[in-house]
Amino acid sequence: MAVSTIEWVDGRIRMIDQTLLPNEFKQIYCDDLPSVWEAIKSLRVRGAPAIGIAGALGAVLGIWNSTEKTYDAFATELKSATDYLATSRPTAVNLFWALDRITRTAQENSHLQISELKEVLLTEALEIIDEDKAMCRAIGQHGMALLNENDTILTHCNAGGLATSDYGTALAVMFSAHEAGKKIQVYADETRPLLQGARLTTWELMQAGIDVTLICDNMAAQVMKEGKIQCAIVGADRIAANGDTANKIGTYNVAILAEVHGIPFYVAAPTSTLDFALETGAEIPIEQRAAEEVTEGFGKLTAPKGVKVYSPAFDVTPAALVTAIITEKGVARAPYTDSLMALRDT
Amino acid sequence: MAVSTIEWVDGRIRMIDQTLLPNEFKQIYCDDLPSVWEAIKSLRVRGAPAIGIAGALGAVLGIWNSTEKTYDAFATELKSATDYLATSRPTAVNLFWALDRITRTAQENSHLQISELKEVLLTEALEIIDEDKAMCRAIGQHGMALLNENDTILTHCNAGGLATSDYGTALAVMFSAHEAGKKIQVYADETRPLLQGARLTTWELMQAGIDVTLICDNMAAQVMKEGKIQCAIVGADRIAANGDTANKIGTYNVAILAEVHGIPFYVAAPTSTLDFALETGAEIPIEQRAAEEVTEGFGKLTAPKGVKVYSPAFDVTPAALVTAIITEKGVARAPYTDSLMALRDT
Repeated sequence: MAVSTIEWVDGRIRMIDQTLLPNEFKQIYCDDLPSVWEAIKSLRVRGAPAIGIAGALGAVLGIWNSTEKTYDAFATELKSATDYLATSRPTAVNLFWALDRITRTAQENSHLQISELKEVLLTEALEIIDEDKAMCRAIGQHGMALLNENDTILTHCNAGGLATSDYGTALAVMFSAHEAGKKIQVYADETRPLLQGARLTTWELMQAGIDVTLICDNMAAQVMKEGKIQCAIVGADRIAANGDTANKIGTYNVAILAEVHGIPFYVAAPTSTLDFALETGAEIPIEQRAAEEVTEGFGKLTAPKGVKVYSPAFDVTPAALVTAIITEKGVARAPYTDSLMALRDT
Repeated sequence: MAVSTIEWVDGRIRMIDQTLLPNEFKQIYCDDLPSVWEAIKSLRVRGAPAIGIAGALGAVLGIWNSTEKTYDAFATELKSATDYLATSRPTAVNLFWALDRITRTAQENSHLQISELKEVLLTEALEIIDEDKAMCRAIGQHGMALLNENDTILTHCNAGGLATSDYGTALAVMFSAHEAGKKIQVYADETRPLLQGARLTTWELMQAGIDVTLICDNMAAQVMKEGKIQCAIVGADRIAANGDTANKIGTYNVAILAEVHGIPFYVAAPTSTLDFALETGAEIPIEQRAAEEVTEGFGKLTAPKGVKVYSPAFDVTPAALVTAIITEKGVARAPYTDSLMALRDT
């Protein structure tokens, strides 16, 4: 990405407001915790890795103007900030991972003066961004080895530069392949209700000069049946120890279609997305979103007033449907309970 | 339906403009062939049986003010009308079936005076409407026998009263069950790009007092996985001799999901939807729709300008995924090549 998805600028957080894309490209500033919380909740910043970065920078923002003099009082202020940010969205584990990392860094440096400690926490948050960039590139390199010349790839939602600080996860594979001169094409599911595929994925791929075709979510089966797709690659919001993968609603659907049509289904995600505390995906909490995102998502009522709506933001794809998980440390294959643990310890 | 979806009123066709629902309920009049053609093409009237009725009434409208004196000249005028209407939409066989029926009726009555012949053709078109009403009720009766108390049904697109002249096909099963006092619930796929599920199916079911929940198309897999669905019922635009079924894009997806989750998948359609001229679904022509329906479907651009779009209006569900086909003459099960033929000859 030529412009940073999210960054720290002089004591404030600057981010691309992704709810306005592709019609308007606008960077907004968050000066306080509520504005960071709102930006995560309303998907101005979205995508598991980017949410993690927003959490880390948000935690720093929460204590940046702290006037506390003792570590204990400072730590209480930090905890209040991280507890608050943790309530913004429940599914992406990267958020909790990043908040924990800032908290641990504070604990490990409790001997420092508060002013020094603030700088250390900021450095840690910026380190998360740097690691994220390196992670994106590494996922791209590992993933592109799975692609053949002239492959057409189906992707769902946006696991691109806008979901991270750099190249993305699923899209990193495509960016890397394209950069390496591999000829590829992409079909992007529009991804109802918030259309991250239509609005963000097509925009990123078009900017990179990659041949992309937009379809509605319900067309993927037909496109596969016509033999147009050679593999599916998606991101992940949380992966359980056994490989069960939570990702944007509709991912499980794509995984079933890929299986039925004999097409490999890949998940691309950093190891920070792995949650070894969860044995299986059944334990992953699934966020429910507001009815209005479905019925008024386009500034116009598209269903009868008062209609009941069921809108889970994520679903869980069973590991059995996942051909491989592409991480920054390498590619894991079934049985995932072993391969993911091995990758973590690499 | 309290108000007719489509009807003949004093030499004109009156129909509900379904593109405006559910925000606005408006009846429009078609006075000439181009306005009927446009109404079919732009989905002001839609649904295979209703398109058939629009075709029949449109053909009558095309010759209603004819000043020809001889049968041959009149027949030429009628042929020009039916040929033109046949170009409006390619997939629903009911359109061609209805146009053929009007043409045949003209041929069989070529000895009549032109003024009498016009009345005979109108009577035939109105007969198609009456038969359609009886068909809806019969499908409802046959289909409700397949439902159990407290079943929750998934449906896709709108195969309701708005798609026919009365109770619909797939929705007829639900209306009949509800009327008979069976307790049922329905999940309706919103059905991108034109949202017939969100706009029309929920509206019809809510008006009838049936418990309906709206979901995005990509949520059906998750809803099934959660055990919420006991069967899926959809309509059909054309059914080949072997049971392969063309219906709204996304239907094939639902059929795969139903199969994978062990849920019965039913197609409800009149025998006029059967096309014995086609051995399999591979021969069914699939209409491609304009990109703007996907990128500007909500009066607002939801994808980058100039993005490539692939938008088939229909897909074909292989007979192997269809648990049963519910017609007005009874319920057919595999092998369909035999059972559908038997039904036709009933």
